[in-house]
Amino acid sequence: MNVTAALKPQDALAAHLAADMEAVNALIRERMASRHAPRIPEVTAHLVEAGGKRLRPMLTLAAARLCGYQGGDHVKLAATVEFIHTATLLHDDVVDESTQRRGRPTANLLWDNKSSVLVGDYLFARSFQLMVETGSLRVLDILANASATIAEGEVLQLTAAQDLKTDEGIYLQVVRGKTAALFSAATEAGGVIAGAPEAEVKALFDYGDALGVAFQIADDLLDYGGSSAVIGKNTGDDFRERKVTLPVIKAVARASAEERTFWVRVIEKGDQRDGDLERALALLTSSGALEAARADAFAWAAKARAALSLLPDHPLRAILSDLADYVVSRLN
Amino acid sequence: MNVTAALKPQDALAAHLAADMEAVNALIRERMASRHAPRIPEVTAHLVEAGGKRLRPMLTLAAARLCGYQGGDHVKLAATVEFIHTATLLHDDVVDESTQRRGRPTANLLWDNKSSVLVGDYLFARSFQLMVETGSLRVLDILANASATIAEGEVLQLTAAQDLKTDEGIYLQVVRGKTAALFSAATEAGGVIAGAPEAEVKALFDYGDALGVAFQIADDLLDYGGSSAVIGKNTGDDFRERKVTLPVIKAVARASAEERTFWVRVIEKGDQRDGDLERALALLTSSGALEAARADAFAWAAKARAALSLLPDHPLRAILSDLADYVVSRLN
Repeated sequence: MNVTAALKPQDALAAHLAADMEAVNALIRERMASRHAPRIPEVTAHLVEAGGKRLRPMLTLAAARLCGYQGGDHVKLAATVEFIHTATLLHDDVVDESTQRRGRPTANLLWDNKSSVLVGDYLFARSFQLMVETGSLRVLDILANASATIAEGEVLQLTAAQDLKTDEGIYLQVVRGKTAALFSAATEAGGVIAGAPEAEVKALFDYGDALGVAFQIADDLLDYGGSSAVIGKNTGDDFRERKVTLPVIKAVARASAEERTFWVRVIEKGDQRDGDLERALALLTSSGALEAARADAFAWAAKARAALSLLPDHPLRAILSDLADYVVSRLN
Repeated sequence: MNVTAALKPQDALAAHLAADMEAVNALIRERMASRHAPRIPEVTAHLVEAGGKRLRPMLTLAAARLCGYQGGDHVKLAATVEFIHTATLLHDDVVDESTQRRGRPTANLLWDNKSSVLVGDYLFARSFQLMVETGSLRVLDILANASATIAEGEVLQLTAAQDLKTDEGIYLQVVRGKTAALFSAATEAGGVIAGAPEAEVKALFDYGDALGVAFQIADDLLDYGGSSAVIGKNTGDDFRERKVTLPVIKAVARASAEERTFWVRVIEKGDQRDGDLERALALLTSSGALEAARADAFAWAAKARAALSLLPDHPLRAILSDLADYVVSRLN
């Protein structure tokens, strides 16, 4: 009897890692405090306590435990990863001029952009201190490279938006920056801190990378109603913001001259009229773009599962495999 | 015959460290490139090439050379320090809504706040990669702590502005965040990379810290015309922005009830009228606040010079001593 069998994979992870996650949460609360600047815990508590799924720190813990780690530094690494994630959310909200995050008003709305920028910087600095405490130069190298990939991807996204020249290669780099780089750094660092053999460390990186890409492609598909192209409450946000995501890239690559004119008008020129979202959805479906993007998401999920085969047999390995299925199951 | 005798101290530093600085500049150009996101070098080149005085990287190089360093990692550290500085400038310009920096339009004006936030993040990440390359955990620790102090000081400045409860202790923390933390990290890290004895490393930290504090107090005094309280072109910028800097803190501490009402009106309430800057300058002078702040700046410069006595006799030591005098000589 596996008590976690009926749970969603992230809940099964949380159940397996409950004691570790309690330590991570305590460390996060301790380190986000600031003796001198009370604005800092106000802003961070708002975001950290809002209770994201804590998926990234759980990936680090799971990777370390799966490789047999018995020390305590995985907790520091997991908190590091969550701090980096929270810092990027704060900066993203400034960049996107967002007003809602996890169903609450964003920090930039509640306080101001200044606080979001500076408190984000503070969290980056705190994450940096935490990882230095692990004393592992290799971990530092992994997280430094991930930070650069994240920032580069974000800038790339800024310049790729509204530009139909964006191809699948650029899209993949944006996706690595937005999502996959921190996923893969989280799992890889967990393996490194556990002293796992190189093949396992590489497998953990590959798992996190593929999981992150699958996750983001699924997200981008859901913005167009998934493969069913049904218009829901949030359908078309990316369309209205003229983002060039995978479904659009594939549709544009398959477009006739007349269809291309449509895409240029709505995405590049931003001239969107009544019925344009419906037309876009029709083109995304008829061209096979949605179906092809969906196949890509499933292929990345399969790649994530395949990477796990190189890792030790362990209950956490089964949960991570389920997690890879789960991120694309939203597309069924 | 010392060929650098007639030069300003920072020019003497530049002359002494010319070959090292050439390597630093080449490394900066190499590392600020981005294969994928051309917006990044556009934004950074604008700022990096605008040619600040490069004082901070020179402090790192000078500290390392003064302690007899013969390796090459001081160049990486110096570039790291300049990247951190440039990143904070980019974020500061967003926070301050600045439109001019070093006589040019700021990046947030030329591009947008988004680019300034994200390219700042990119430079932080690149600086982090560079310092990891040195392989020194101690250097990483120094720079992680400095980053946290900088971010905390910036947030503190945000909340301390327009608040007359700000005391000299809080002011000092803001100053450490704005200026002194990176100066002291620059000099301390230079000593550490050179493998200098602890007493010298500590002296280098103390020098950088005191130099930074002296520099910032002098800057804040000059905003009120220095000790002469003469109104010049930029006099009163801090007053108009209702910043609570050392001269104001000292004047408020010495204020009569009627004078306090004035400070509350102009700084806390922001109700500034014709003649208020003149009244503020009169109060700053008559209360002795400007003179006392000037004495503080000179005391910090003396502290910086004193710290140098623990370091090896070296031409660079004499230049660093001159530099400490120079930052406050603007007040004569």
